[in-house]
Amino acid sequence: MSSHQLKVAIVGSTGYGGVELIRFLQHHPHVTITSVISASSSGKPISEQFPHLNGMLDMVLDGVDPQETASKADLVFLATPSGVSSELVPRYLEAGLKVIDLSGDYRLKDTDVYEKWYKHQPAPADVLAEAVYGLCELKNNDVRDVRLISNPGCYSTASLLGLLPAVEAGWVNTDTIIIDAKSGVSGAGRGTSLTAHYAEMNENFKAYKVNKHQHIPEIEQVLGEVAGKPVQVTFTTHLVPMTRGIMSTMYMKTNGGHSEQEWIDLYRNYYKERPFVRVRSANQWPATKEVAGSNYCDIGFALDERTGRMTVISVIDNLVKGAAGQAIQNLNLMMGWDETLGLNMVPVYP
Amino acid sequence: MSSHQLKVAIVGSTGYGGVELIRFLQHHPHVTITSVISASSSGKPISEQFPHLNGMLDMVLDGVDPQETASKADLVFLATPSGVSSELVPRYLEAGLKVIDLSGDYRLKDTDVYEKWYKHQPAPADVLAEAVYGLCELKNNDVRDVRLISNPGCYSTASLLGLLPAVEAGWVNTDTIIIDAKSGVSGAGRGTSLTAHYAEMNENFKAYKVNKHQHIPEIEQVLGEVAGKPVQVTFTTHLVPMTRGIMSTMYMKTNGGHSEQEWIDLYRNYYKERPFVRVRSANQWPATKEVAGSNYCDIGFALDERTGRMTVISVIDNLVKGAAGQAIQNLNLMMGWDETLGLNMVPVYP
Amino acid sequence: MSSHQLKVAIVGSTGYGGVELIRFLQHHPHVTITSVISASSSGKPISEQFPHLNGMLDMVLDGVDPQETASKADLVFLATPSGVSSELVPRYLEAGLKVIDLSGDYRLKDTDVYEKWYKHQPAPADVLAEAVYGLCELKNNDVRDVRLISNPGCYSTASLLGLLPAVEAGWVNTDTIIIDAKSGVSGAGRGTSLTAHYAEMNENFKAYKVNKHQHIPEIEQVLGEVAGKPVQVTFTTHLVPMTRGIMSTMYMKTNGGHSEQEWIDLYRNYYKERPFVRVRSANQWPATKEVAGSNYCDIGFALDERTGRMTVISVIDNLVKGAAGQAIQNLNLMMGWDETLGLNMVPVYP
Amino acid sequence: MSSHQLKVAIVGSTGYGGVELIRFLQHHPHVTITSVISASSSGKPISEQFPHLNGMLDMVLDGVDPQETASKADLVFLATPSGVSSELVPRYLEAGLKVIDLSGDYRLKDTDVYEKWYKHQPAPADVLAEAVYGLCELKNNDVRDVRLISNPGCYSTASLLGLLPAVEAGWVNTDTIIIDAKSGVSGAGRGTSLTAHYAEMNENFKAYKVNKHQHIPEIEQVLGEVAGKPVQVTFTTHLVPMTRGIMSTMYMKTNGGHSEQEWIDLYRNYYKERPFVRVRSANQWPATKEVAGSNYCDIGFALDERTGRMTVISVIDNLVKGAAGQAIQNLNLMMGWDETLGLNMVPVYP
Repeated sequence: MSSHQLKVAIVGSTGYGGVELIRFLQHHPHVTITSVISASSSGKPISEQFPHLNGMLDMVLDGVDPQETASKADLVFLATPSGVSSELVPRYLEAGLKVIDLSGDYRLKDTDVYEKWYKHQPAPADVLAEAVYGLCELKNNDVRDVRLISNPGCYSTASLLGLLPAVEAGWVNTDTIIIDAKSGVSGAGRGTSLTAHYAEMNENFKAYKVNKHQHIPEIEQVLGEVAGKPVQVTFTTHLVPMTRGIMSTMYMKTNGGHSEQEWIDLYRNYYKERPFVRVRSANQWPATKEVAGSNYCDIGFALDERTGRMTVISVIDNLVKGAAGQAIQNLNLMMGWDETLGLNMVPVYP
Repeated sequence: MSSHQLKVAIVGSTGYGGVELIRFLQHHPHVTITSVISASSSGKPISEQFPHLNGMLDMVLDGVDPQETASKADLVFLATPSGVSSELVPRYLEAGLKVIDLSGDYRLKDTDVYEKWYKHQPAPADVLAEAVYGLCELKNNDVRDVRLISNPGCYSTASLLGLLPAVEAGWVNTDTIIIDAKSGVSGAGRGTSLTAHYAEMNENFKAYKVNKHQHIPEIEQVLGEVAGKPVQVTFTTHLVPMTRGIMSTMYMKTNGGHSEQEWIDLYRNYYKERPFVRVRSANQWPATKEVAGSNYCDIGFALDERTGRMTVISVIDNLVKGAAGQAIQNLNLMMGWDETLGLNMVPVYP
Repeated sequence: MSSHQLKVAIVGSTGYGGVELIRFLQHHPHVTITSVISASSSGKPISEQFPHLNGMLDMVLDGVDPQETASKADLVFLATPSGVSSELVPRYLEAGLKVIDLSGDYRLKDTDVYEKWYKHQPAPADVLAEAVYGLCELKNNDVRDVRLISNPGCYSTASLLGLLPAVEAGWVNTDTIIIDAKSGVSGAGRGTSLTAHYAEMNENFKAYKVNKHQHIPEIEQVLGEVAGKPVQVTFTTHLVPMTRGIMSTMYMKTNGGHSEQEWIDLYRNYYKERPFVRVRSANQWPATKEVAGSNYCDIGFALDERTGRMTVISVIDNLVKGAAGQAIQNLNLMMGWDETLGLNMVPVYP
Repeated sequence: MSSHQLKVAIVGSTGYGGVELIRFLQHHPHVTITSVISASSSGKPISEQFPHLNGMLDMVLDGVDPQETASKADLVFLATPSGVSSELVPRYLEAGLKVIDLSGDYRLKDTDVYEKWYKHQPAPADVLAEAVYGLCELKNNDVRDVRLISNPGCYSTASLLGLLPAVEAGWVNTDTIIIDAKSGVSGAGRGTSLTAHYAEMNENFKAYKVNKHQHIPEIEQVLGEVAGKPVQVTFTTHLVPMTRGIMSTMYMKTNGGHSEQEWIDLYRNYYKERPFVRVRSANQWPATKEVAGSNYCDIGFALDERTGRMTVISVIDNLVKGAAGQAIQNLNLMMGWDETLGLNMVPVYP
């Protein structure tokens, strides 16, 4: 640990987002974890909750105490649920910490929309106004030196990365976008429920929250900004009997005139400086396992010449590019570091 | 076994379609299996291939010999691959057997279309003309006393059952139909391949044959007949890390004016005499496990009032309603029996 | 339903044991389910808890009320947890019902042993004395016309069926028995817990309750009776990332002199009248999938001539032969019916 | 890449052992992969076989040509099957390369034993004599500066690490050792087979090669050396429906007099300098997921005071500590580097 290490704290360390932050930050050359925080388990070793950390991170969990955290750390990651971050973020900011929030509480700029989809009290308006939405590969996204980053949702990340270049280029009829999204079960978090009960979900494939998922307004907010006009999408979420991975299969009417290869080139050009988006060649559709454990988003295409529809397929690891990995990528960009620091791991295959 | 038992033979008994036929036919009160046939393993006990049949079906596999089969059986199920059935069906018919074919070889009436999508030689025109497509719940479908039934494809069954009532009623703009389909891995059959290799497919979700699956023309053929005009669909197939189950999530622009409950009522009315289709109440979307091991097709709805799109979700067990179960249902209808004979099993849950 | 149907009620219908009883009893020619009972969900349709039952068992859940149940049913299955059955059984008996109890509360004859392993109050002594332990294939086991059957544990069933013939014959040194047992996750029931949380258990294999499982005294009680002297076993339980299935791999020093084939013959002879135990030929070890969904117990052998140890491998479906299936088999024996009634289903493969 | 980087080649790069070497070596600060070799796919980009490597390792596969490899690399890993390495190792050595062989061909010092268990021609006697068995944590194991390391088997590693301290200390009756081992399916390699076919192995738990696995003589060879007398074990292998992970559950009669805590202390002391073995506290048994993707071996204990038997439970990731990870650990030791270089990754959880 060099004397110039950034000291970070993680709130929500006993959840899947928190423990995935730990996995990557342990390899980050410029970061030291100085506090792991859990409202419910403070005072206990984190290895009681996560025996796999034995010998790697032998820390005792701290409680939620912004002043104490500020004495130990420069920046805090909030891997806390929506409805909790809204209230915690101002307290950590006030204590002098920078904040990267992984919840949905600071993503939607319109508080009425937030209340409608999240059914929680919205975050304070001034803090919300300050938050920068951190979809790293969004053009002109700039989080350098900001104090509060709102990390995107998992479905939103997979879907938007597969749509942005085409929407920006005006190659797609934005009234026709349909997103059929599928997620591994870790997306439901570590809290037990019948939905995530092993015998219920194993060997099962199910739809949930059809047209009602809270990532819909987030996707529409970003697409609307890029398109320069309101965009509405049809969006279905499904659970897949696997732990990690999201695929968004997206359908849209094209505005005609471009071959599949031109689409591929458009996307490769859009992402040409960005190490974590990989655009596949023709007829090579991505699979979730090919990005498992990594920060990659892989994108493939199929133009249906019979119907004039483009199918775009995008995959991420929901816990990495869809949560902890992108949060660290945001940290790197915030600090002006190489965006791959701590994140350049090969996907775990098989 | 009564003296009036129908004697049946199963060609392709060592594949998943064949062994699933055996599972159900063992419980059929009017049927006796008199020959299990395998081109590759004839002369060996079937329990060598399938130890789970020990003590339940202790038969030796016969070879492909229509005359010999005709001396033992009244009817033959062909659970053989496309490109094989085309040639076998005429031989079994000629030997005097009735035939229910589970392959794709007798589904498409247009041989050019068959050749384009299947890349095989089409079946003889006269036999093809005689074959009746056996989607049991299709209105006015009549297989009573026919000699050759072509059993529908697995994806086609799930998709068509979710579309027929709305297309027939004219409630859907047939230019806007998109089918996002997901299947368990048993759909790939028992032949080994890297795609179906455990370590490659476990914890993986992948798209394949996007816009290229051979069930596309089958779906379009039936929809076109029902709509009274050509219909083209966009159709994506995915593999899910589970053994059994298909879900088709289907998107379409409605022609307006009908509430979600009216859709539910429309479907309940269409299927009111049919025991194997269950239409869910509002906000109750089906899951594949809820039909596992059974001949049910469960269907749910979500009307997106923001975009005017209906999402229809349909699930089946690909090996039952998508193959062996529907083949037996067709047998029951062909013979004029109660269509549930041998098939009224409770789904295996969990 | 004939007028001679036996009317049965199921307490604990919303758990996995209860719903599996329903699956099989729906096919039982002499039984009608007249009441499904749940302490926590009474008044609601069972299909709210289990949508897969829609159209097959459209009943409303009753509460726990022995008098009311006695007015509707002749016999009650208790698929209730240990610590609950102890108290419920006497009430249902007193109301005039026959009882088959699937819990552990009436298995151990020594109440001190029960308290030590179960940490609950034992059942009343007189009722306990009346209960007959229902391991169906145990020689001289006789449940004909009894009023209260205690259905064996899942691990106990798999393990005992693999040990009984050898222990009875005196071919094994009973001081050397080691049982390494593995179970699918449905054995943990439908109550949510971190252990049975999908993302924790998927892609995981773990040991639990090593030397501490409450089936140890049950196995030792039966082995002791058969051996005519106290027997102690070393017993380890593991969870396998699958829903159904138990394998017991059992190690023991032989008393010499018998070939592997002689062991196979010994077991085939012991079970020759029993349809649900299948003894494999040499070098054919069973797999859990080969009995999935069925009431079979399959047993295989490997004699290690280098060390003089026999390895016996036994598999069952934990929810069938290890719970609901054996309970129905016990019902058949109690009533003097063919023991396969309602149970002769082919394993679900694949 | 510094000018002092060690240049390595990997033979068998398209198998699971090979691709796992790539995953870790990409993070090794002192190593550069200069050639990836495949007998069957030379001339093609490795990313055709493994799309997940796109953008991380964009190399074309070389063929098997020791001279050419010697011009590019200093050391070669052979991730080739048994029966292939025996012949390849001498050729790579002769070309001037150092070799770390992951197959079983150079593990057994007695060629008769090799032939009996492997059914292949043994390796040349002189080369075999030179090979050093690389179980890294075996006391007095010294691979520093050797030319040929034989990397241990996956089952052998898990089992021996759980037995060595007790056998060395003389605390165990070596006539009583029983190893019940379970492995994820990736252990079967990337070659397709019915055993590793998804629908056959999913939701299945099966025993295989009972008493016949080729790791038996390897385990006995090492235990015999440590015990100073011949040791024979009973050893059963099972397949678990998961991709990665091995658990060995091991049973043995103790020689009395030591508490469970004394065993824990004995093991902690034996491994006190070794970063990759973690000895659990009392009543904390390891699970395979807690080491997934990492080079750890976790060990737990349960002393059965009733029977005087100790149960030792040991887990590894079969592809890491059981193959590629230990091979790199051996490389580090051979080169005199810190043994954790490139290997200090947090297990992937969940």
